[in-house]
Amino acid sequence: MRLKVRDIDISSGGPLVAVMNKEDAAALDLHVMDRIKIRKNGRIETAVIDIAQSSKIVPKGKLGVFEEVISSLKLKNNDAVEISIARKPLSLDYIKKKLDGRKLDKKEINQIVWDIVHNKLSAVELTYFVAACYTNVMSTDETLLLTKAMVSHGDTLKLNKYPVIDKHSIGGIPGNRTTMVVVPIMAAAGYFMPKTSSRSITSPAGTADTMEVLTNVTFPIKKMKEIVLKTNGCIVWGGSLNLAPADDKIISVERPLEIDAESQLLASIMAKKHSVSSTHILIDIPVGNNTKVKNRAGAFRLKKEFEKIGRKLRKHIRVLVTNGKQPIGNGIGPALEARDVLWLLKRDPRRPLDLEKKCLFMCSQIFAMVGIKNGHKRALEILDSGKAYLKMLQIIKAQGGKETAAEDIKIGGLSFDVLSAKKGKLVFIDNHLVSRIARIAGAPIDKGAGIYLYKHLNDKIRRGEKLFTVYAESKRELEYAKDVAKQNKVFVVR
Amino acid sequence: MRLKVRDIDISSGGPLVAVMNKEDAAALDLHVMDRIKIRKNGRIETAVIDIAQSSKIVPKGKLGVFEEVISSLKLKNNDAVEISIARKPLSLDYIKKKLDGRKLDKKEINQIVWDIVHNKLSAVELTYFVAACYTNVMSTDETLLLTKAMVSHGDTLKLNKYPVIDKHSIGGIPGNRTTMVVVPIMAAAGYFMPKTSSRSITSPAGTADTMEVLTNVTFPIKKMKEIVLKTNGCIVWGGSLNLAPADDKIISVERPLEIDAESQLLASIMAKKHSVSSTHILIDIPVGNNTKVKNRAGAFRLKKEFEKIGRKLRKHIRVLVTNGKQPIGNGIGPALEARDVLWLLKRDPRRPLDLEKKCLFMCSQIFAMVGIKNGHKRALEILDSGKAYLKMLQIIKAQGGKETAAEDIKIGGLSFDVLSAKKGKLVFIDNHLVSRIARIAGAPIDKGAGIYLYKHLNDKIRRGEKLFTVYAESKRELEYAKDVAKQNKVFVVR
Repeated sequence: MRLKVRDIDISSGGPLVAVMNKEDAAALDLHVMDRIKIRKNGRIETAVIDIAQSSKIVPKGKLGVFEEVISSLKLKNNDAVEISIARKPLSLDYIKKKLDGRKLDKKEINQIVWDIVHNKLSAVELTYFVAACYTNVMSTDETLLLTKAMVSHGDTLKLNKYPVIDKHSIGGIPGNRTTMVVVPIMAAAGYFMPKTSSRSITSPAGTADTMEVLTNVTFPIKKMKEIVLKTNGCIVWGGSLNLAPADDKIISVERPLEIDAESQLLASIMAKKHSVSSTHILIDIPVGNNTKVKNRAGAFRLKKEFEKIGRKLRKHIRVLVTNGKQPIGNGIGPALEARDVLWLLKRDPRRPLDLEKKCLFMCSQIFAMVGIKNGHKRALEILDSGKAYLKMLQIIKAQGGKETAAEDIKIGGLSFDVLSAKKGKLVFIDNHLVSRIARIAGAPIDKGAGIYLYKHLNDKIRRGEKLFTVYAESKRELEYAKDVAKQNKVFVVR
Repeated sequence: MRLKVRDIDISSGGPLVAVMNKEDAAALDLHVMDRIKIRKNGRIETAVIDIAQSSKIVPKGKLGVFEEVISSLKLKNNDAVEISIARKPLSLDYIKKKLDGRKLDKKEINQIVWDIVHNKLSAVELTYFVAACYTNVMSTDETLLLTKAMVSHGDTLKLNKYPVIDKHSIGGIPGNRTTMVVVPIMAAAGYFMPKTSSRSITSPAGTADTMEVLTNVTFPIKKMKEIVLKTNGCIVWGGSLNLAPADDKIISVERPLEIDAESQLLASIMAKKHSVSSTHILIDIPVGNNTKVKNRAGAFRLKKEFEKIGRKLRKHIRVLVTNGKQPIGNGIGPALEARDVLWLLKRDPRRPLDLEKKCLFMCSQIFAMVGIKNGHKRALEILDSGKAYLKMLQIIKAQGGKETAAEDIKIGGLSFDVLSAKKGKLVFIDNHLVSRIARIAGAPIDKGAGIYLYKHLNDKIRRGEKLFTVYAESKRELEYAKDVAKQNKVFVVR
């Protein structure tokens, strides 16, 4: 069937989608969510179809196409294209199989990941996969196959070095910018650490957002390799690289129900580490309020799984279950966190000691993994000697930035303080509310927005003492943040 | 936040969807699949949001809206609307609960069904519900609650009569137009039978499509009641009524994986019967090739479940497991099936005896349920006396049609015969291919298109003898049907 293209000027956000007129669809016996092949000048693309209810949008003889189809086939409005019926992707049978509680083999998992990466599955179909893996939890072997498939259907960074260090902190607590301290320490100690980090999705800042206050974070993989070979380390945004791209698509359908299929969490993290040829991996699982992993039992179960998958991938892996009951560091939000990190690296008395303590502990664990004793002492020496700061500066410059003094980091010009209404001990900090207020104040888009905390758990508090300051760049956002901060118990003093 | 409406001229097919500009979404900390409240002149509607990747479609300050939102809020292009953050529907927590393998209670199932009926759930969210019920099969009590919730969130037909008869045949075999024979027989015997039927989704004809060859099938519920009170029976299209409307929405996300969650199949059928206040229900489960229920063990398990739910709804229920190895009747396609039915009711020698036999058996079962012995004989008397035909005529007229002779039913003007290439016994008929060829020939949209079968299983076949004729209304469709018929083994003679 020959149809004329109608650009409907909207993006599906992934899947290739085309819209047919009711009559044209009936002529080929096609239904919503069936698939067609679209041919144009020797190019062929498969798209999932939707059927227009009125002929207003897609009249008979026209084929409405979403942006993804336009760009894949290089179409223009009114181009003639040839349409035919396409088979369903093979992976639908495999997804059904998993939903039926059966195990998937290598070929099947590979096909599913290939179809995800190439946008062959609709959101509904991908949801069935996520639901299937959530209810019929994948075995370690399946998770391993999923990890490998995610790596192979994406780009990889080949360093040909040993050891290659990596770390990952599972989310949920505000601050916790350990990467920006651990990478310069380990790189200064002579180890390779090609670190990719994420931007914020639901938090006030991801490591990539914070690093961006100091330098560029978006690079092609070739440039990332140059930076690592030159400075031993890097802190770049993983989203600009094409490492294990299936992962982001899976996450997009997990959000509505806040589902975290354990096998996908494992595969996602391990695939990203495997993609940059890491050999020694430290995983940090914080457990506390609003953390991704809800309790210690869950954390230890996850730790075991990480260790199993790590062994099967022939990685050295160490998993820490850490305290996630309060934010780590004082600043929350890109600029405030970046300032904390610079203070820490420059040994400024204003540096957050809780963050320093955690980073030193993590470094000591990494040193132990590569066979170095007294790692804690060594890491502290690297920090105190200023070598870690110099290494950070070298990385910042290699990534195209220049030296910035902590004082020159621009913090939001508008602020308000929250004081304690009573005297007592700080017994609870609501991680979720801290994040939420920082976001409402403008973080991470307004880099200077966020929260600065003066107190930590168990601190003694005087009546009227400052608990935290909220910073914003615009008045409207400050007011809104103020409302939320006043209505809710962010800090509980008792 | 105040935004101006931009009609993006496309329908989501159900869920209320709005598209925001990236910057506007960030200002409210909104992500894809989050929800907003849209206010306009005192009306409020909640919509799921998508975020425009470019500002081409939805510039800052605009709100792109799908057709469903336009019509619900009566919006026009450039109308100013007020936007705020909306909570997620409560039912998402309950869907997650079911996905986690826990049982749902009445309140929870009610909320889910309410949200489905009112288009509050996105396709992805609805998919999680279907997947949850598929993998964590609902208990009989949950299925009962789902059935009742489906009924209560829809319209109902109240007849205040006893008994009220209903029947349902589960799909998969071509032909099988038992409703159009059973309803006039039972109505002629003095019983109320307010029958709603479906149109074809993937078959060459649904009962509603076939009945439409003879009369109207689309009525509001009030008119349906009038027809039933006047003639004892009716055969109308269920889709035009608002009976258990959650069902169609659920089915839409089941198609891609061809999932049939048993609890939903049960709830769907029983809800539709309960909605028209049926008291005595006959269920027909054909088992054979390409039938919905794949084997006898599955059919008997389903039968048990039907009986349990039926008892709990205080219905008299009888479930038949029947032979689905071949089409029932000779004509496949709306006009050809309607002609079979008229021949049968008019006692024409050309009538399909297999369909007659099955209908008489079903009537005998219904008679037995209402305490009448010799039901088979009574049904045959009603048929032979012409009373069933007269009752059908009365129903046809009450539904706005007029008498049509079987000979005057318009069959497709183009046709080709398929002859047997060899001599032997007919050992296999491919139900799926029969349906597919009839559809490709134009059924059910071209009412006259379809297939007429001359042979049934175990018939002796001479070489060169006619096996079936394919009818079409257009040349192109006839040719395409010919290709498929020639390339594949529709009938196997051995």
